[in-house]
Amino acid sequence: MAVGSGEIKTLFPVKGLSIGVTCAGIKYPNRQDLVVMELPADSLVAGVFTQNAFCAAPVQICKQHLNSGKSIRYLLINTGNANAGTGQQGYKDAMASCQKIADSKGVAVESVLPFSTGVIGEHLPMDRLLAGIPQAFDNLTDNGWLNAANGIMTTDTRPKAVSQQFEFQGKTITVTGISKGAGMIKPNMATMLGFVATDAKVNAEVLQSILDQAVNQSFNRITIDGDTSTNDSCILMATGQVETDSCDGVESDLYIPLKQTIDDVMLKLAQAIVRDGEGATKFVTVQVDKAGNTDEALQVAYAIAHSPLVKTALTASDANWGRILAAVGYSGVKDLDVNQVELYLGDVCIARNGGRSEEYQEAQGAAVMAGEEILIRVVLNRGEVSDRVYTTDLSYDYIKINAEYRT
Amino acid sequence: MAVGSGEIKTLFPVKGLSIGVTCAGIKYPNRQDLVVMELPADSLVAGVFTQNAFCAAPVQICKQHLNSGKSIRYLLINTGNANAGTGQQGYKDAMASCQKIADSKGVAVESVLPFSTGVIGEHLPMDRLLAGIPQAFDNLTDNGWLNAANGIMTTDTRPKAVSQQFEFQGKTITVTGISKGAGMIKPNMATMLGFVATDAKVNAEVLQSILDQAVNQSFNRITIDGDTSTNDSCILMATGQVETDSCDGVESDLYIPLKQTIDDVMLKLAQAIVRDGEGATKFVTVQVDKAGNTDEALQVAYAIAHSPLVKTALTASDANWGRILAAVGYSGVKDLDVNQVELYLGDVCIARNGGRSEEYQEAQGAAVMAGEEILIRVVLNRGEVSDRVYTTDLSYDYIKINAEYRT
Repeated sequence: MAVGSGEIKTLFPVKGLSIGVTCAGIKYPNRQDLVVMELPADSLVAGVFTQNAFCAAPVQICKQHLNSGKSIRYLLINTGNANAGTGQQGYKDAMASCQKIADSKGVAVESVLPFSTGVIGEHLPMDRLLAGIPQAFDNLTDNGWLNAANGIMTTDTRPKAVSQQFEFQGKTITVTGISKGAGMIKPNMATMLGFVATDAKVNAEVLQSILDQAVNQSFNRITIDGDTSTNDSCILMATGQVETDSCDGVESDLYIPLKQTIDDVMLKLAQAIVRDGEGATKFVTVQVDKAGNTDEALQVAYAIAHSPLVKTALTASDANWGRILAAVGYSGVKDLDVNQVELYLGDVCIARNGGRSEEYQEAQGAAVMAGEEILIRVVLNRGEVSDRVYTTDLSYDYIKINAEYRT
Repeated sequence: MAVGSGEIKTLFPVKGLSIGVTCAGIKYPNRQDLVVMELPADSLVAGVFTQNAFCAAPVQICKQHLNSGKSIRYLLINTGNANAGTGQQGYKDAMASCQKIADSKGVAVESVLPFSTGVIGEHLPMDRLLAGIPQAFDNLTDNGWLNAANGIMTTDTRPKAVSQQFEFQGKTITVTGISKGAGMIKPNMATMLGFVATDAKVNAEVLQSILDQAVNQSFNRITIDGDTSTNDSCILMATGQVETDSCDGVESDLYIPLKQTIDDVMLKLAQAIVRDGEGATKFVTVQVDKAGNTDEALQVAYAIAHSPLVKTALTASDANWGRILAAVGYSGVKDLDVNQVELYLGDVCIARNGGRSEEYQEAQGAAVMAGEEILIRVVLNRGEVSDRVYTTDLSYDYIKINAEYRT
């Protein structure tokens, strides 16, 4: 199950970046499961990673390589095995994969970033993985985004990819990205995997800042099951191949259109993960208005988004607002005056003054809940801050998928 | 579904306390749904209540009446309707129920404590509730505990009651209690409803202290779905009808046996709630050893106990230890060195040194997971503190129950 059509529109190539995908048989035969990305020299790469203390070996290596000062030229991504909880051997395996590319391409090992997703706690099948690398390079193409989106899926039911363009100084600048993830999703810095690239000219500091801000409003605002993965990684690449003035700070004319386009692509990629959440039948925006600060807005939003009782009510299309109020009540907001809290489903006011709204009719709530895309809005009346998170319902299929699949 | 037989052994009456139960038709006809408890003069009553900001009207009134200084003589408990999220009308309704008893018995309204559990956000059917009160009083008996355990159930599949006795100064002292709750269970001071009584002589300060300590190791250590109810209440009553030296402090000879018996009764009542958790097929103890302090022990224990991925693996009897390690990793323990963490399922060491234990065989984990009662034990090696929480798996039936039932 998934929400919406999941249609992917034209994926514009990013100048200078090429992608190769192959079936390496990491976990299953005849499945695209190994992706390489090749960047031109002088590209810039920024990353954000999971805050899970048990972060996977490839995440540790990505951080080291990004901090090494060496230019990043290659990304290697496998699905089917997360190389997490694999101790020293896992680290050696991930380094060996990087070394294989470094040797064949004549670059430093620090110029290669490794990414893995799939089952936790099993060692990578190194023979098949290493054999797959040259095959993936044989398939390098400018138009590899859709294959790559397929090649990083795990329990995803469909690929996720977004591409947008804008004009700047008479040139067309492209931002294209892919993401994956459907369970173990409550990113704490980034989603399981997201790769976004642009051909704009931009300096390293601005690139990292744009990534941090975009992730914070997109991948860091989604939750499916509240489980923060060991492998979350989100990468923003800039090839700088479109010859315009460079974006060197917030005053650059390129800053606003580039930031807005990247924000938009990342938000759509993050929402695509929620729409394809394990067992999802609803796409739910939980918006908190008039909070005193961002922390309390998110406390309330996540309490609702993580409540199994709210999520099962959503599955049943049941406007069970009592469960939502209960979640607001235990969210931990200090000195919450429940008489000030208003609750809306879509445009319908369900509760205010500590209880059910007098004009509310059950049929109104039922009408909102019948939809696939639902807005739950809580007005705290404590300040002027708004924030929102995106989530799904909790259905039989979530249980089925996770009782049968080994993360 | 539920774990274990749920067998209830002999329920010894508590001297001086009588209980009456009736079918008032609060939500369903012909169901025991209204309970009154009558205490002799000079009884002492201590309570702990939900920390949910949207606490229900009866919880607000209980707190006021317990603080009024008036002796508590009557408890009134209904199931079928939580009287939560009901605003001013809800408060008036709960007060009117208390007043009805106060008037007929000639006591102050503050001598009556009201309790409600069931659907949130609907007003109490006051006509049926008020009509039921004299019927319940007509049924007063010393042997009402089992009927009362039945009369406070909501989605519980079976009543929960525990009774123990000990000898002190040649007299027999009894501690008997009942509890209810199967969903919306992550108590934050007390379970949804727990009522425990003793006929021991004990002063008010000691009674409250024993209750606080017992709740903290029992009802505050269980979680089914992480949803903290609006109505959690746990009450400890002492009728003082067994003539021995009074328990006036920790130095009293009565203190240790009384405290141990109450601790034990409360722990069994709390565990009974978990064993009857909505859709439960497993009873899981999550124990964290060698933590630096209680907070981090509980952070880790609750991260595991709340993880939908761990809970669905339990449903599938799948020793998916990677999900457990991932939960440890995101639990938020500061500066966690994952290489120091050890993970055990029962007696089997599954992981150490940041990865799978070398001697571990899948068949060993599978054997542990096949059982109904499972111990997940994490050794942090950061200090000397141990703590534990009790929880269940997350099954299809949890979804079924909560997609179909209005909390």
